[in-house]
Amino acid sequence: MKELLKYLEIADKMEAWIIEKDLSQGEKLPKLAELMELYGVSKSTIVKALERLENRGLIYQVQGSGVFVRRPKRADYVNLIDNNGFTADLPTHKMASKVLTLRKIKPPKKVQAVFGPEQTEVYEIRRLRYIDADVLCLEESYFRTDIIMYLNEQIAQGSIFNYVRELGIAIGFSDKYLTVKKLDQKTADLLGVKAGDPALTINEIYYLTSGEPFDYSTTTYHYENSKFFIQSNA
Amino acid sequence: MKELLKYLEIADKMEAWIIEKDLSQGEKLPKLAELMELYGVSKSTIVKALERLENRGLIYQVQGSGVFVRRPKRADYVNLIDNNGFTADLPTHKMASKVLTLRKIKPPKKVQAVFGPEQTEVYEIRRLRYIDADVLCLEESYFRTDIIMYLNEQIAQGSIFNYVRELGIAIGFSDKYLTVKKLDQKTADLLGVKAGDPALTINEIYYLTSGEPFDYSTTTYHYENSKFFIQSNA
Repeated sequence: MKELLKYLEIADKMEAWIIEKDLSQGEKLPKLAELMELYGVSKSTIVKALERLENRGLIYQVQGSGVFVRRPKRADYVNLIDNNGFTADLPTHKMASKVLTLRKIKPPKKVQAVFGPEQTEVYEIRRLRYIDADVLCLEESYFRTDIIMYLNEQIAQGSIFNYVRELGIAIGFSDKYLTVKKLDQKTADLLGVKAGDPALTINEIYYLTSGEPFDYSTTTYHYENSKFFIQSNA
Repeated sequence: MKELLKYLEIADKMEAWIIEKDLSQGEKLPKLAELMELYGVSKSTIVKALERLENRGLIYQVQGSGVFVRRPKRADYVNLIDNNGFTADLPTHKMASKVLTLRKIKPPKKVQAVFGPEQTEVYEIRRLRYIDADVLCLEESYFRTDIIMYLNEQIAQGSIFNYVRELGIAIGFSDKYLTVKKLDQKTADLLGVKAGDPALTINEIYYLTSGEPFDYSTTTYHYENSKFFIQSNA
């Protein structure tokens, strides 16, 4: 396992290096041979690490020319490609959560449709999430209790994804569905806006690296306090 | 060139095959050896083609277990990862455009900031885009005239990206910035909704595979006629 995931570790180190050096879009990375020496790993590990960074929209590779940095030119946008969570996306801000609901329940139908009929119990968590002093979003999540076996309010006040990773659970990929709507009174009240005001709703399913879904979330964003970016490489 | 892009051709064939067979999420693809035989190409070409499909959110690979299909479980959502355009994203719908503006101009400041100060001329294109009989969005695009040297209204009524590809220009990656707002009267009138109604605005910069930006667009979506998905693999 450790050996297989070496490239992920190197990818994380390269990302930290790009941020630390504050490299900007279009700046060229060192050549393969230099990167191999710098990180003390094989060519195939560097190649896989670069692919990982390309997938995440952090670099682009030009055949015969080299590897170049991609970075958003605008601060404070939430990254819709990486699955690191707000805490990692918005490092210059103070993120906080207010837990509205945290309980184990029988999954609602829409959740069971995603997790499968054999799923008889889930954690339901509703949180208001704040960026600095402002409301960012209302998040309603369902986690499989056979994968995330323990959660409490203190954990839910921080980054649940960080907690999941600390448990040694490997978060893989996600499906996200976006729609825009006018808010109902109840949700508007929670977000501190008016009924009828606009909102982006993102419906997300997160999978483990094994392909198993473990988190089903619906997040409704405060339209004035949220903005998003996607660095697509396809 | 042809040789280098072989894996892209194979990736396209595999994608067409997945769609034709109507494989659903979680279905397993044939093993590497079978794919090599099926497409008559080397292992490295198959590996690169699979990476391409993984980047685009069409498959996921589980170490030691195989390659599996990823497909959105909901129809009619616009893919925010692939850069194929609506025509490819919404194959069961009739897409059309009404060209409002098509002219060569000196780039506005916001556009020159992206293309660089040496860019003295761009095509400005404003289009209303329709899905079946409904307005999907208002799109305002700027193309570099030194890359897209010729455009006319007939081309702009169809897929400009298909035209660009037919010119042999290789579209690479994109940066997309998303915000939600209340519409002003003028844009609302064009979209056929009311002033103050919600809208998602996506500001996009498209790059060639060389890393050069060639298209700067701002698209404002009809909130009831548009929905989006992102299959992230990061």
